[in-house]
Amino acid sequence: MQNDGRTAFGKNIRNRRQELEISQERLAEQAGLHRTYVGGIERGERNVSLDNILCIAKALNITASDLMRGVV
Amino acid sequence: MQNDGRTAFGKNIRNRRQELEISQERLAEQAGLHRTYVGGIERGERNVSLDNILCIAKALNITASDLMRGVV
Repeated sequence: MQNDGRTAFGKNIRNRRQELEISQERLAEQAGLHRTYVGGIERGERNVSLDNILCIAKALNITASDLMRGVV
Repeated sequence: MQNDGRTAFGKNIRNRRQELEISQERLAEQAGLHRTYVGGIERGERNVSLDNILCIAKALNITASDLMRGVV
């Protein structure tokens, strides 16, 4: 299931990941998640939990607050 | 289960709710959640999902980004 919030959040992750020039696989490894799950998050298909949001933010070296910018 | 991120997030919600002088019950009603679930979130006991984070932010008339400030 997709919605605006999940889509916007996924785009924020993809943009930051590409800024850092790292692959989905590398991000998944650093965040302790499965690569296909990271792919689903970036496509806006996942209702990510707070714990995983914080793991992803840490892996992307960005605050969770910045990662949520513009997500409504 | 509690961790620093959940505890900090719960405190942000409680602070904003008290700023608006609304009860947990009122917040739960506006966010479409159960009151006891909101209580658990504020105590840092819940691993809240993205969808619910956005519902709570909307109900508290604050951005999700601001609601996540300082949450690591």
